[in-house]
Amino acid sequence: MGPGEGASETDRHMASELGGLIARERWVLLTGGRNAGVMDAAATGAQKGGTLTVGILPSDDATSVSPGVDIAIISGIGEARNLINVLSSRVVFVCGMSPGTASEVALALKTERDVILIQPSPESRAFWTSLDARRIHVAAGPPEAVDIARRLIEEER
Amino acid sequence: MGPGEGASETDRHMASELGGLIARERWVLLTGGRNAGVMDAAATGAQKGGTLTVGILPSDDATSVSPGVDIAIISGIGEARNLINVLSSRVVFVCGMSPGTASEVALALKTERDVILIQPSPESRAFWTSLDARRIHVAAGPPEAVDIARRLIEEER
Amino acid sequence: MGPGEGASETDRHMASELGGLIARERWVLLTGGRNAGVMDAAATGAQKGGTLTVGILPSDDATSVSPGVDIAIISGIGEARNLINVLSSRVVFVCGMSPGTASEVALALKTERDVILIQPSPESRAFWTSLDARRIHVAAGPPEAVDIARRLIEEER
Amino acid sequence: MGPGEGASETDRHMASELGGLIARERWVLLTGGRNAGVMDAAATGAQKGGTLTVGILPSDDATSVSPGVDIAIISGIGEARNLINVLSSRVVFVCGMSPGTASEVALALKTERDVILIQPSPESRAFWTSLDARRIHVAAGPPEAVDIARRLIEEER
Repeated sequence: MGPGEGASETDRHMASELGGLIARERWVLLTGGRNAGVMDAAATGAQKGGTLTVGILPSDDATSVSPGVDIAIISGIGEARNLINVLSSRVVFVCGMSPGTASEVALALKTERDVILIQPSPESRAFWTSLDARRIHVAAGPPEAVDIARRLIEEER
Repeated sequence: MGPGEGASETDRHMASELGGLIARERWVLLTGGRNAGVMDAAATGAQKGGTLTVGILPSDDATSVSPGVDIAIISGIGEARNLINVLSSRVVFVCGMSPGTASEVALALKTERDVILIQPSPESRAFWTSLDARRIHVAAGPPEAVDIARRLIEEER
Repeated sequence: MGPGEGASETDRHMASELGGLIARERWVLLTGGRNAGVMDAAATGAQKGGTLTVGILPSDDATSVSPGVDIAIISGIGEARNLINVLSSRVVFVCGMSPGTASEVALALKTERDVILIQPSPESRAFWTSLDARRIHVAAGPPEAVDIARRLIEEER
Repeated sequence: MGPGEGASETDRHMASELGGLIARERWVLLTGGRNAGVMDAAATGAQKGGTLTVGILPSDDATSVSPGVDIAIISGIGEARNLINVLSSRVVFVCGMSPGTASEVALALKTERDVILIQPSPESRAFWTSLDARRIHVAAGPPEAVDIARRLIEEER
């Protein structure tokens, strides 16, 4: 998860690297599906790496879908689809921050998903940790984020 | 699409055969995802046939998912997920009829999807045809339904 | 509930009369909220009669709201808001029929609401009765529909 | 908006006072509708003050509704109803903070609503301001919050 049109160059670069690492783990990558920012970079990175990519679109058609998405779910429920993004994920990776992304982190905590913030700003780290220190994890970059996710999944078994 | 717990033996049998035929076409099969009735039979039939199966669950966890579903989307929005089922489908196949199924047929017509009713009751056939004769197609069984779908997809290209 | 842009003159006329009768009962009237067809006529009729009117809009702003709506709920979830329309209603009155209306009748049956079809077509009456004869009621016009609703509410107490 | 079961005594007290002040302005008060925490205190306070109160419930029935809610909207879409809460509001008042509340603040910013944080924690204030300094307002208590809202509404006209 991460910003769409407002994503920084760093956000996109991290998301692309993360997508590739997720593919190497043979995990399915799920994003918000649009052809913009972190969604697009992560899906494209994972697809290039050879794993299946799923995108949950807010719109009622597929015109805005990222070419990196293999399976497009057309939700038609606008920003309410952010709930589906997090409920359908085992671990939520976050590159960058925006209002839409913040709603996904918040809904992930509400529905008891683990969230891994990659290189968060000091304000973001402090706030989310104050809300739920147990579910919020911080990674210095995509490789550490994947290490944390692997550990969380193994612990759960 | 079709009834869950209230599915008849015939509904389930047709759904299973349909799943197998969809797999043979290499189409992705999408259902409402639960471990009941037509959803379960169609997903299991398609999975056995070797194609990818997607299930859009109404619940906020995956406890009710059919074992025939490869990719479970956990929507958490209850029956409102019926909109997503039809928006995400190119063609909607219908085996049997129930209130939930009727909501999917209606939303499919509202959002301009083609609907193929397989062995509908006279009341079902007459009603849906009176609403939208152009989008409603009737098939005598799963093989004819797949023939109709193939033709619709080819026409669109 | 009833057609929007596709409503007939009769549909609109019945909806307006129904709104007035609902106002006389001091019931709150709830519609899909848009400035079109049955929604608009029913809300305007009820507002003129002096009762509170609620509209659940599909859009993410209020530009399409009927002037007959006192309380506009802006859902932002498109046609998925049809579920909210019926869940929030004690009794669902239906004037006319369209794909959107059919989705509301179907969701009402699925969630166990009583539905009163006013002057339905033979196809509509036969189909919905075949799905759930206990929940479907048929009225010759708005006054009989309100009589049926009053009786259902009294029985429930 | 504010925490449900996890609300502090201060959160509830502020919400109740805020509800009373909103009633004095003759504004309609809208909450998440449940019989818990800030939702319940704000609705009850506003209802006592004599204004109309609306509650958007996440559940598919009304068993959890606050007695302070006059108009219960039963959404049936779980936490996805948080989008409706903010879209249907002109100004979003926030007492306390929790994951659910954070999702509402985030969706309010995403959909360009003004948000007034009442006595926020330093972490909350710093984070939300870093996301959107123009839409986030901070108030020392309910009276100042209502002053800010009145000014925002007047500016808009």
